[in-house]
Amino acid sequence: MIQPITKPASVPLYVELADSLQQLVEQGTLRPGHRVPSVRRMALQRDVSISTVLQAYTVLENRGFLEARPQSGYYVRPRLSLEAPEPRMARPMAKPSYVGVSDLTAEILAHTMDPAFLSLGAACPAPSLFPAKKLARVMGSVVRNDPSLIGRYAMNWGYEPLTREIARRYLQAGATVAHDELAITIGCTEAINLALRAVTKPGDTIAVETPAYYGILQIIQSLNLRVLEIPTDSREGLCVDAFREALQQNDIKALFVVPSFQNPLGSCMPDAAKEKLYELLVEFDIPAIEDDVYGDLHFSERRPKPLKSWDRDGRVLLCSSFCKTLAPSLRVGWIAPGKYMERVRRLKFTNTLGTPVVLQKTISDFLRDGGYDHHLRSIRRAYQNQLHLFSQAVLRHFPAGTRLSRPQGGFVLWLELPNGVDTYKLYQDALNKRITIAPGALFTAKDRYKNCLRISAGIPWTDTIAQALETIGNLAKQQLGQ
Amino acid sequence: MIQPITKPASVPLYVELADSLQQLVEQGTLRPGHRVPSVRRMALQRDVSISTVLQAYTVLENRGFLEARPQSGYYVRPRLSLEAPEPRMARPMAKPSYVGVSDLTAEILAHTMDPAFLSLGAACPAPSLFPAKKLARVMGSVVRNDPSLIGRYAMNWGYEPLTREIARRYLQAGATVAHDELAITIGCTEAINLALRAVTKPGDTIAVETPAYYGILQIIQSLNLRVLEIPTDSREGLCVDAFREALQQNDIKALFVVPSFQNPLGSCMPDAAKEKLYELLVEFDIPAIEDDVYGDLHFSERRPKPLKSWDRDGRVLLCSSFCKTLAPSLRVGWIAPGKYMERVRRLKFTNTLGTPVVLQKTISDFLRDGGYDHHLRSIRRAYQNQLHLFSQAVLRHFPAGTRLSRPQGGFVLWLELPNGVDTYKLYQDALNKRITIAPGALFTAKDRYKNCLRISAGIPWTDTIAQALETIGNLAKQQLGQ
Repeated sequence: MIQPITKPASVPLYVELADSLQQLVEQGTLRPGHRVPSVRRMALQRDVSISTVLQAYTVLENRGFLEARPQSGYYVRPRLSLEAPEPRMARPMAKPSYVGVSDLTAEILAHTMDPAFLSLGAACPAPSLFPAKKLARVMGSVVRNDPSLIGRYAMNWGYEPLTREIARRYLQAGATVAHDELAITIGCTEAINLALRAVTKPGDTIAVETPAYYGILQIIQSLNLRVLEIPTDSREGLCVDAFREALQQNDIKALFVVPSFQNPLGSCMPDAAKEKLYELLVEFDIPAIEDDVYGDLHFSERRPKPLKSWDRDGRVLLCSSFCKTLAPSLRVGWIAPGKYMERVRRLKFTNTLGTPVVLQKTISDFLRDGGYDHHLRSIRRAYQNQLHLFSQAVLRHFPAGTRLSRPQGGFVLWLELPNGVDTYKLYQDALNKRITIAPGALFTAKDRYKNCLRISAGIPWTDTIAQALETIGNLAKQQLGQ
Repeated sequence: MIQPITKPASVPLYVELADSLQQLVEQGTLRPGHRVPSVRRMALQRDVSISTVLQAYTVLENRGFLEARPQSGYYVRPRLSLEAPEPRMARPMAKPSYVGVSDLTAEILAHTMDPAFLSLGAACPAPSLFPAKKLARVMGSVVRNDPSLIGRYAMNWGYEPLTREIARRYLQAGATVAHDELAITIGCTEAINLALRAVTKPGDTIAVETPAYYGILQIIQSLNLRVLEIPTDSREGLCVDAFREALQQNDIKALFVVPSFQNPLGSCMPDAAKEKLYELLVEFDIPAIEDDVYGDLHFSERRPKPLKSWDRDGRVLLCSSFCKTLAPSLRVGWIAPGKYMERVRRLKFTNTLGTPVVLQKTISDFLRDGGYDHHLRSIRRAYQNQLHLFSQAVLRHFPAGTRLSRPQGGFVLWLELPNGVDTYKLYQDALNKRITIAPGALFTAKDRYKNCLRISAGIPWTDTIAQALETIGNLAKQQLGQ
């Protein structure tokens, strides 16, 4: 049954062993509650040292697959059912409102950058997940081979080999975007800014999913726009029928939507819903700003099609970046603004002039030869595994009745705790223990989600995280008097 | 009289020779109209080959110091008097207006990037003026030594060693700015955007110098602000008395000002005027956004003090960048926003999140060990020399009565042509000859400067430039029927 393992040079032997055993658990060969072979026996079976087996078992403990029972040995940990209830959809909002975002975001982000805190509050993946060394080598040769890239004025809409590569990838994903219909931006953040400024004027109303990523709420606030929050399902995304009602009752100038793996819900709109949404945009003649920054982080085989795939008349402004998939710190994003291209270009020019070509060429060269698809597969696997382990820990340690999202992509979890839990207080209590979380109140311009929470599973699983989630769960139980 | 020349390894012999002869012209040893020694005699005198002397004389022809007279030899070219009249100050503007910037700017900038055009229209220095190779080496070691810079999320207000270095340099220039009072931005363009957004709301009126850099007019337009243009002297900058009158008659929310080497005039406000301006800001209790991007490009010994030097209460938002002095393409700028720091930080976060640390550290390491001061001295010398040659050519070839600015820093020239010249037509005619210039109409939100022109002297002098300026001059004369 158990096969001898081979050893590629790059992976330590104990990790190899752990991976192979984990596979047996996942395939059901080793079943929950079963005792695994003793350390000594496993060492004999696999022809490795005892310390290698001990290390492998420790790795599997950390990953949540094994548990050590004193005086008895290692057992396959019971897999907690993920059949726990999912978060409920919010009610529609009666009228648009301006956003009053608290200073909390800045505080959370400051702590995120502070190595003294364990940051589960910001949707920033761990640096270790990215091929930084390879990118550094690519960037080194980019500047060595053409130093004039540094002297030439950075006034451009996009480095063509990069825009061509992005266009090629969208074609594969089902969306036709020509390379010269793209402008390269400083991250997805600038792309969203330009898009919003291209389609609105101050005072206008933007429809957004609810809960919504707090960053978009802050951008909307900074541009003096109003929001109308549209009920959104934690699995299937924006509720198109609710959006229709909102359109009938309000003067909505544009929709901001994250159709694939929405932050914070992790929801993904089915193709049919995306199509229906697009037709609704046409019917009411409004544009949509599509944030596709998580689209490449799908766990199923197929990458979800962007809403842009259905766009016949250039009303979808597609925004994205490499910040969640490849190189967070290079801030290379893009926008395919459809018929708003001229306005967006002019705004890009007045906002930041251009995006440094050295960054664009680094990404472009990596996409060409760096094994980007291989990297994407590995980062998707990592996020999926991390989300699973985080979810299990939440179900184990959080108060009974906690509802939990089931993201099929991305790396954030949305939790709805029982009524009576105040997640702002929970945030403060966790901060005292040097852990950050993102309380639900951040994700709305209204007075809701006070018992909700977003947790980022962007950091590889460790004992510290396990303990942190147990701590947060206990703090929540204390609030409920449990 | 004429000394034998030594030869450092790095400079070709004929350039050495040309430099040494140019020095003799500049010192007055060789005087205008005098014949220089024949090629053969010079070769004997300096113990170099005849072809070296021929090359050196050609260089000096290109630089405008010598002229060849057929059958006669080389003569020191008459130095045209720079006592030609200077451009006149504009009249005050009756009331604020929204900006209606034409598409011309985008067109000019597109041609600037097109190597088929000789670009005298955009204020972009030639890449050859920057230490690109050295910066490339620095950037290569930055990423090699710390690849994690690429993986870490770029969420920051500034890389501390860089902000400390910028603060140190301001201290030398006479302005006290603490390193943590700075935020690093995507070029000066983003800094100005953040500053304007921090101190205004849509519909507000901003006072600007006139003529004004068209980029600032476009930013103002993109933010739905109004401008009031304040008369500005081509030598002494913003007319403070005219600004006082404007403040008395209008509800001005802020001033945007380039006190040192204003673009396009090249004017520099004397210290006394800066101080008087600051006191006026206090009296009327409004903030000023100071664009100091040309401040380091002074031709006299002393760097002009920023307006910020007089700032007692944080009402001056100082904006600048390394794009005109060191690395145009890296887009590293900054803002010292005084008492508006919190607002500016929040806007930076929503606008572009952060500035890539790899770019910041590259600049910072170069400032630490790369000989930045040495580079600055050489680029200042280059700009001064180029401006001189451009000015001479303008006086030689443009219609009589052309007025010309006398910048004491920076690298742009402002020309006021005789009435009857339409510089928009001149721009179009020049474009047909594959030369770009910036017509005066770009530099105002009003209907003026139709006979004015900005020429950038950011490109080292060549025959092509000499011919281009002659061409433009002839086109202008044609318009006047000359």
